[in-house]
Parts: sequence; structure tokens; C-alpha cells
Amino acid sequence: MTATAERRERLRATAAEAGLDAVLVTNLLNVRYLTGFTGSNGALLLRTDGADLFGTDGRYTTQAGTQVPDVELLVDRGTELALARAAVAAGATRLGFESHVVTVDGLRGLERATGEGAGAVELVSVHRAVEALRAVKDDAEVDALRQACAVADRALAELAAEGALRPGRTELEVGRDLDARMLTLGAEAPSFETIVATGANSAIPHHRPDATVLRDGDLLKLDFGATVAGYHSDMTRTLVLGHPADWQREVYELVAAAQAAGRAALAVGADVTAVDAAARDVIVAAGHGEHFTHGLGHGVGLEIHEAPGISALGAGTLSAGMAVTVEPGVYLPGHGGVRIEDTLVVTDDEPELLTLTSKELLVL
Amino acid sequence: MTATAERRERLRATAAEAGLDAVLVTNLLNVRYLTGFTGSNGALLLRTDGADLFGTDGRYTTQAGTQVPDVELLVDRGTELALARAAVAAGATRLGFESHVVTVDGLRGLERATGEGAGAVELVSVHRAVEALRAVKDDAEVDALRQACAVADRALAELAAEGALRPGRTELEVGRDLDARMLTLGAEAPSFETIVATGANSAIPHHRPDATVLRDGDLLKLDFGATVAGYHSDMTRTLVLGHPADWQREVYELVAAAQAAGRAALAVGADVTAVDAAARDVIVAAGHGEHFTHGLGHGVGLEIHEAPGISALGAGTLSAGMAVTVEPGVYLPGHGGVRIEDTLVVTDDEPELLTLTSKELLVL
Repeated sequence: MTATAERRERLRATAAEAGLDAVLVTNLLNVRYLTGFTGSNGALLLRTDGADLFGTDGRYTTQAGTQVPDVELLVDRGTELALARAAVAAGATRLGFESHVVTVDGLRGLERATGEGAGAVELVSVHRAVEALRAVKDDAEVDALRQACAVADRALAELAAEGALRPGRTELEVGRDLDARMLTLGAEAPSFETIVATGANSAIPHHRPDATVLRDGDLLKLDFGATVAGYHSDMTRTLVLGHPADWQREVYELVAAAQAAGRAALAVGADVTAVDAAARDVIVAAGHGEHFTHGLGHGVGLEIHEAPGISALGAGTLSAGMAVTVEPGVYLPGHGGVRIEDTLVVTDDEPELLTLTSKELLVL
Repeated sequence: MTATAERRERLRATAAEAGLDAVLVTNLLNVRYLTGFTGSNGALLLRTDGADLFGTDGRYTTQAGTQVPDVELLVDRGTELALARAAVAAGATRLGFESHVVTVDGLRGLERATGEGAGAVELVSVHRAVEALRAVKDDAEVDALRQACAVADRALAELAAEGALRPGRTELEVGRDLDARMLTLGAEAPSFETIVATGANSAIPHHRPDATVLRDGDLLKLDFGATVAGYHSDMTRTLVLGHPADWQREVYELVAAAQAAGRAALAVGADVTAVDAAARDVIVAAGHGEHFTHGLGHGVGLEIHEAPGISALGAGTLSAGMAVTVEPGVYLPGHGGVRIEDTLVVTDDEPELLTLTSKELLVL
């Protein structure tokens, strides 16, 4: 059975448990996850009796044949409504829909298409059912993440070796170099808007690169990733340009210790709040608790941020196969900040580290 | 008055006309359009009494202060619900929401936050009101589009001059070169997944670049664009590698004539179906009607596809300031295809052409 067929069987089991005849999957990333389809318009009618239907429009007939050979195809301009009508025609009376994705206007359309006025079909909210499955990655997904992380590792190594991260250049120039190099190395796109933050800007967790010039003695925080086969890598490294000051080295070592503690806490069954605490406690003990202003990490996959969230406000435990980031930071406003972030996969043994760039303080 | 303040006044007039006390704008692109905010979480409560409120979370406090200095700021993790509660606290009884954006789960949250159970607040569907304003660009927007088009023009010119578009290379390599060069030239990102299609692949309107090798005598179709300041350019050029065959030259000249006819039809007050027909009639008259399988064009701006649609199924007329593409194509399955596409701005006079790359058949 293909990976996508296995994923559909897992969703089918969930749908049957909920007493649904079918689920209309319209989140395009969920559709991709369940079918392999990468076009910009597609939806899946997953039926508990196994007679699934994949819908797209005429632009994608050929692509659907190639990417989704194992699901019956329905070509229609109004894909979602056509699938809903097909469900009704097949006798469905309880039809699940993704209530976190379908808009208010969209539900109105579904109600009309399924003739809910007549009371024939009950539209049932299916809340993040596919997203919950997606939190645990299969081998094909981990492989894509591994490749995405390798592209980011290599892009940084090449730019560092070429002297691209030197005083006198701007944040914007460095960011564009990183993005362009990742593309050259096989990325489909950067995972998100690359963060390049130097000097006092490094104290802003999500600084947008601007014309600020890199200067000798400054911190340089790089938060970036590559997308490969739809999967996102996410890594942050903080470097020092020239000789590190004592305070820079101290903050760096503190964050590195917290990050190691967070990684060590990634175990099957661990509560996400406990993982966050494992890293946070190190920073709090050093008196910098107020300078670590965000959660410890998040799941990564077809989205850059997905389940599970790893923070004090999170809920749930880790399972083998979850791909997550561990990214503590200490930010001293007006001064500078350090964040160190890896992407890892939880396993029954040690977590597998996917971002392999050294975490020794890199002095350029 | 700033451009964003002027845009808010236009929406305010629409809201007052609809008898609304306030509109909760949650489509992030609409929020950007109305405020200038570029972060990943923000919403605008636009009040007809003029006391607007911009909401975001703690990550963006500084950025909001810089980008949205002229709207009162509300910082809250649950941005949208906090703004809805603020509307109620200010006495709103009719609150507009973007029903094409707010999900079914989202509306449930809004109902709870505004206590609709008690009948205090009526939540009123506001369908694409901001998108309708966005169809007509102001000077700042046209300037961004002009820059985005210039980046794409220059990237193609440089790659052609360097011999990057030569037999022996793959579609993927050419696509990655185009993307990387646009970034180097100042693009924030490609406008969309760059299309590179050679040989028989050029007959597929939306072909994804793959390992197909460029060969002497083949067509090479490039559909790509750059994003600058959030605005997207969109251009297609079809070249020939080596000496063009007669059929290639004939199809090219047909599409070029249709494209010129489409551009000539871009006038204030023109019906979008008539613009589509102006180009389509040329192709139909040559016996290739069935090989032009999509609409003639679409609006471009903060999204790569936005209002107005220019097709036989469209509705409405053109206004001065609309930025649109004109992109007829003729696709001969299994053989090859030609598409020529420009981005232009409708004016009271001739349309302004933003994509300046020559449309003479380029032979490399």
C-alpha cells in the first residue's frame, strides 16, 4: 500500500468511529497529504465504504492522473460542491466537513448543494482530524524533512565558507543570499520569510531583514529553512562577527544549555509542557526567564507551524514520528539576542537530529 | 492623508452605506492593504465613527507601532475575538465580518465573544468588500507593481544574455535560476511556482518544471513573476531554442496578434467578457478556438489572482487603475504551446504596460 493510501485508511477509521458516511477534505495541504496531489485546486471525498473520489478542475486532469492514480477522479470547476453532490448521490446522510477550513460562505454553498433544507444530509464538523494524523510523520515524510534540513545546512555552510556573512553587508543582502542559495541547492522555496537580525535587531524575535549593516563584534541571528517536496525545515543559528564579548558568550552558552535540555526531554510520552519547562527552567534559573518570550517549539511538516505546539500553554504528549523544533531564545532589548533552533524527530530511542549545523558558537 | 488612511475611508463609506457600526477585517492581505501591516497575525476593527482599532499579538508590538502608527493598537493573543469584544464594548449592534474568510469554527467563536445568544450584536456578512476596493490600484500600488515587473524583466534578460536558456539544461535548473536571480535583484519571493515548460510540455498550460532537458528546436515557455513590497508581477514569454519551425512561428504570430488585440481592448468601461472576446476571436478565426482553454487574464496585486477576472464567464467592466494580465495561449497537445502574457494597468488613455520584455519571437 502506498503511503498516501495508508494515510487514507487511518482517516477512514476515524471517520467510521465518528459515525460518518464520508468526509469532505478541502484543506489543500490535507488533500496533498492524503493523495499526493500538489496542484492549487483539489479536494477529497473520503468515504467510509472505501469508494473515495478525488476532485479537481480541468487544468489538472493530467496531473491528477499521474499523482493520484489510485483514487477515482471527478473533474469539475466547482470541485467541492460537486464532491458534496456525489456524496449525496451515493446515499450519504452524515457528511463530515473541515469546520476550521470551510468558510461561512462555503458552508452555505455546501448546505445548498446537499439540500440540507430538506433535511436529507447532516453536515458534521470535523475539527482538525487530518491535522492530528499529520503530526506523526511516516518514513517518506521524515525523508523529505531530512532533505529539507540538509539544504539549509549546506546553504549556510557554503555562505560562511565564501565569506558572505561579513561586516559591511546588510541583513537584506545576507537574507537574499541564503534564499537564493537554498533554491540553487534544490529547495522549492524558503520555508518562510528568512530572518536575518544583527546587533540590537537580534533582540527582536521575529525581525524582518532590513538595510542594517553587519558590524564587527555584533551578533548575527539567522532563522531560515528550505522546502523540499512540500516539507519545511526550520533552523536558527546565532553567530558572532569577530571576537565575542563576554556577555555574548554567556548568553550563548545559556541558550545552548537550555536547548540541549529541551532536546534531551524529547521522548515518547513526554508532556509538551514538560518539554518546554525542561529548557525554560535552565533560563529561569539563570535569571533570564522574562527574556525568553515565546514557546519552546512547534511541529513542522507540510506547514512550518503545525501540531504539536511545545509550550507552557500546550497540551498533549509526544509520539514517535513527531517532527518538532526546539528553539529557546534569550533576548535583551536594545542589546542583542540569541536563539538556537533545531528540527528533530521524536523516536522510541534518542530523538533524530535533522539540522546538523554545529551549535558551537561560530565566530566569523 | 496616507494611502492606507485613504483606503480605510473608502471602506468606511461602504460600511456606513450598509448600516454597519463596524467591520472586522481578518483577511491578512486586506489588513495589510488597509493598514500597511506585514506581520503574520493582525486584524482591523474599522468603525464607522472613525475610532478604528488595530489588533495583533505581542510578537508584533514594535512592528505595529512602526507600520501602523495612525491606528490605535490593541495587543492580545486572541486578536480577532478581542477586537469583536471591543466593538461590543463600544456599543456596536451591527458588526460586519468577512464571510468568505471567517471559518465556520471562527464564526462560532465570534458569536460567543459578542454574546449573540443574548441578541445584542448582529453579525453581518461582508462579502469581498475590501477585495472590491483592492481591484483599483492607487499610485503606491502601481509603483510596487512596476518594480515587481522590472525585476522579472531584468532576471530574464540577464539569464538570456548569460546563455542560461540553452539546450542541455533542464526545466528545473532554468526555473531555479530564474527564482534565484529574481531574489538577487530584490524580489521578496517569486510570485508563484515558476513555470518552465519545453517541447511537448509547453502544451500543458500549468506544467511544473521537471527534469525534462531543453533541446534544440524546442519551444520554451516561461511563466513567472516577482513579488516586491507584497505586489506580484506576472509575465509569460515563449521562446524558441535554435531555428523556429514554420508551425512554431505561425502559432507564435497568432498568439501575439490575439494578445495585441486583448491589450487594445483594455479600456475604461469595457466589459471583461468583451476584452476576453477581443483576443479569443482572433484565435477562433484561425481555427484554434479549442486550443485556447482558459480565460484571457486576471487582476494582480497583493494576490497573484484577484479581481477582476477577464474571461467569457466574468462579469463587470474595467476601471482606471485596475492592474490585469492579458495572456492568451494556443496549446497543441503532445506537440507544443505558446502563451504570451503581460501585466498592464488600465488608464483613461492607453493601458500602461508594466512588463517590458520584448514580444518579438526570441530565438536563442
